[in-house]
Amino acid sequence: MAGDPVNVAPHVYKTVLENDRVRVLEAGGSPGLITGMHSHPNQVAIALADTKMKFTFPNGESAEAELKAGEVMYLEPVEHTVELLGSEEGRLILVELK
Amino acid sequence: MAGDPVNVAPHVYKTVLENDRVRVLEAGGSPGLITGMHSHPNQVAIALADTKMKFTFPNGESAEAELKAGEVMYLEPVEHTVELLGSEEGRLILVELK
Repeated sequence: MAGDPVNVAPHVYKTVLENDRVRVLEAGGSPGLITGMHSHPNQVAIALADTKMKFTFPNGESAEAELKAGEVMYLEPVEHTVELLGSEEGRLILVELK
Repeated sequence: MAGDPVNVAPHVYKTVLENDRVRVLEAGGSPGLITGMHSHPNQVAIALADTKMKFTFPNGESAEAELKAGEVMYLEPVEHTVELLGSEEGRLILVELK
């Protein structure tokens, strides 16, 4: 597995709280920010602001996703890089499940 | 245990997504709204807007909590009623853990 997002991209991911059930990250920043390859377990993403992203996977394929402020998405375990797109600062809460 | 918040207070709680790991609720409304007694499992609360609440527990004790927009709180399993306080509409995402 690729690295921990908090270590790989501390300019994008910060730990908000952690216990034996979850780790909660805040993620975001300005359009154009990009992370190195990293992995997440199952997680719930909650958008605090409109956030548009491009994911690139280890096989080279990519996908875009957009969450409006207040929208929620469930993600299976994933390994990817993330680039922030759009014209505004993106901001997400990620509830990683242990 | 008291009832499911979605059944006890459908004017406050709506299910956003559910799978075998989590149930995600959106909760909120106008100051003065109050729920009947209900219970939650372990949950992560994420505030989408500034939200001030009064909790009352089965033993009659009560407590107030305030989350600013973007703040996150972890809660152990709880049985309570909730009253929305403050002067603005409150809005939370609740990630209930299974």
